[in-house]
Amino acid sequence: MGWEAEEATYQTLSHQTGSRIVFLVFDGLGDVPGAEGLTPLEAAAKPNLDQLVAEGACGLFYPVAPAITPGSGPGHLGLFGYDPLRHLVGRGVLSALGIDFPLRESDVAARFNYCTLGGDGRVIDRRAGRIPTRLNEQLTELLARELDPGEPDVELFLRPVSEHRGLLVLRGNGLGARVEDTDPQETGVLPLDPRGEDAPSQRTASVVGRLVEQARKVLSNQEKANGLLFRGFDRRPDIMSLSDRFALRPVCIAQYPMYRGLARLVGMEVAPAPSDLESFPAALGEVWENHDFFFCHVKYTDKAGEDGDFSRKRQVIEEVDRLIPALLNLGPEVIVVSADHSTPVPMAAHSWHPVPTLLWAPQTVRRDAVSEFGERSCAGGGLGRLNLRYLLPLALAHAGKLKKFGA
Amino acid sequence: MGWEAEEATYQTLSHQTGSRIVFLVFDGLGDVPGAEGLTPLEAAAKPNLDQLVAEGACGLFYPVAPAITPGSGPGHLGLFGYDPLRHLVGRGVLSALGIDFPLRESDVAARFNYCTLGGDGRVIDRRAGRIPTRLNEQLTELLARELDPGEPDVELFLRPVSEHRGLLVLRGNGLGARVEDTDPQETGVLPLDPRGEDAPSQRTASVVGRLVEQARKVLSNQEKANGLLFRGFDRRPDIMSLSDRFALRPVCIAQYPMYRGLARLVGMEVAPAPSDLESFPAALGEVWENHDFFFCHVKYTDKAGEDGDFSRKRQVIEEVDRLIPALLNLGPEVIVVSADHSTPVPMAAHSWHPVPTLLWAPQTVRRDAVSEFGERSCAGGGLGRLNLRYLLPLALAHAGKLKKFGA
Repeated sequence: MGWEAEEATYQTLSHQTGSRIVFLVFDGLGDVPGAEGLTPLEAAAKPNLDQLVAEGACGLFYPVAPAITPGSGPGHLGLFGYDPLRHLVGRGVLSALGIDFPLRESDVAARFNYCTLGGDGRVIDRRAGRIPTRLNEQLTELLARELDPGEPDVELFLRPVSEHRGLLVLRGNGLGARVEDTDPQETGVLPLDPRGEDAPSQRTASVVGRLVEQARKVLSNQEKANGLLFRGFDRRPDIMSLSDRFALRPVCIAQYPMYRGLARLVGMEVAPAPSDLESFPAALGEVWENHDFFFCHVKYTDKAGEDGDFSRKRQVIEEVDRLIPALLNLGPEVIVVSADHSTPVPMAAHSWHPVPTLLWAPQTVRRDAVSEFGERSCAGGGLGRLNLRYLLPLALAHAGKLKKFGA
Repeated sequence: MGWEAEEATYQTLSHQTGSRIVFLVFDGLGDVPGAEGLTPLEAAAKPNLDQLVAEGACGLFYPVAPAITPGSGPGHLGLFGYDPLRHLVGRGVLSALGIDFPLRESDVAARFNYCTLGGDGRVIDRRAGRIPTRLNEQLTELLARELDPGEPDVELFLRPVSEHRGLLVLRGNGLGARVEDTDPQETGVLPLDPRGEDAPSQRTASVVGRLVEQARKVLSNQEKANGLLFRGFDRRPDIMSLSDRFALRPVCIAQYPMYRGLARLVGMEVAPAPSDLESFPAALGEVWENHDFFFCHVKYTDKAGEDGDFSRKRQVIEEVDRLIPALLNLGPEVIVVSADHSTPVPMAAHSWHPVPTLLWAPQTVRRDAVSEFGERSCAGGGLGRLNLRYLLPLALAHAGKLKKFGA
């Protein structure tokens, strides 16, 4: 009896109450010390977060399990209280959910990136210089007109997402979703051939191979966006909603489609995307009355980490810190500040390092000795080290939303 | 492979030796810092416990799993080395075991509380002002005479336990135990109707409904104890004994029936109940020769926590601390001091917070840097954080009772 029994128990014990939980998620927050000896979080001036820490308890959480570097999907499933090893969600499915594409059960979805290919076909830039979304929209419209799956019973949908990102959906009978990525995840090499792991997936792969060929021709006059890379082939998984699991009325406030998509996957309502970080408290206020779980997603810490930009990452933390008083004014019973994974600046990529986490719950918290929010201070925190899937149940307990187990 | 394989391994490796382990359990010991910034345990003058800490190792243990608030049953099963999620024990069964009621396999047992009901039938006090045990005995004798299950093949047993607590046992064929509590767990509302989850349990529920009605009439002239609330309908579960699992010869020293009942459930012998805390060392001495595992249960820390009484909880800890020299004089090889769960004074209820734990074993312990026994000092202890079911195996190891695994 491991997680299954625990998960079932959390579900049984959950009951709806009037208390409210805010989950403030800094994407890719965790880091490692840079040349100056501090992480961006440690270096940031963040008096309000530090105050929450002083009044709360801290810990380090493994997004999936020790040593595992999660993508955005698994990281968020951990945050939402699911075992990411049991619920695999392809990136294509997330992209589809994030742009409100009405994905059918049998559809196969994949994320695509516009990329820059050299004359020899090798990948020069996996993101085509992050082309503007408008160019993406124009090119995707063009591709949707020109590309032909080559099988009469297969329907093709291409959708722009943002910057270099897009969505492919294939609809038709007998299409498998077990297709490997064509994105090689590095530059200087050829895109990978689409390969299916079983017969239906081989059919999908051959359609995709055809589309790749056709797209190169259609895009041949483009300077940057002259190729397509696919990843995350998948079908929509069947995941029990947060409301069924934990009796929550959850809502998502996120600027980026993928995170709104993840929130939808676990049954969250999705509020309109705030235009900037400063709009988050007002956005929360709009949905405050009718919900009790607020997933607030800050993307820019991850972006700064992926760009290796220490000072930008620090600044994002400082910007969000200034929003905490407005958040407290709303009167939540519990605030959790955490992350879906680490994106250390020196690595400029996601990593496996456990994520710094604070839990603020003045009525019930066992305050610890930590007084500043940081990766290394959290290592001595009262919450210890747990897999991230325990964080939401802990927030439920502190919010009075978990009944006693047994007599 | 998780706990099943570990559990089987502990069993295989266990062997009987002459060394002795004392498990000193403070019920509900864990707490959160109060207004003065300290927990009762942190505030207590407890030189002897601190000396055990200085010579031993500490940790924090999750009674069931993170975020789960255990009842007394699951908390103790964790202490005894069982996964509480696998062995569900109803409160009625515990009560029966605790008063030596010879429960048969097919009997259905439930705990009842005398309660105070208003003229409108709503619950005013779930414990009837904690009536004296003598009044309970008189009323229960009266009820046993007057109540009639109304089915000729169903036999009825009513027993007083202590204060407002009593035991109901129904004996007869075709009675199910899947009956929901009638105790609403709050005041100002009506008691719940007994409901059975399957046909045999519906039969039980209809008998219970009849008894509730009859009891209201019989008790109608009582000022406080004028109603009955039932909870914890269950049958005796089948749990492997500590002697079969760990080759132990265990004995229980506890003042309260429920804990003696729990001890019997895992096959412990039960020593006569000590009249007060001061009598514990003598009670231990009486059974010292023929046993090697001594479960000593101190109830009053939990009672003080449930009453929100900080100074009483601190005093109980100080009282028990003064008994440690007498305990050491007996010459145990291993002393463990822990708890079945936390009962924080500010919450006046059980909670999910992990329990502070010390392990004293001069021959084998890896001493850590902790020098005072407290919730937050234990957070930095050498035992780290584990589920409580690992504590007894750790004590076995330190007592030389677990052989090497593998060649």
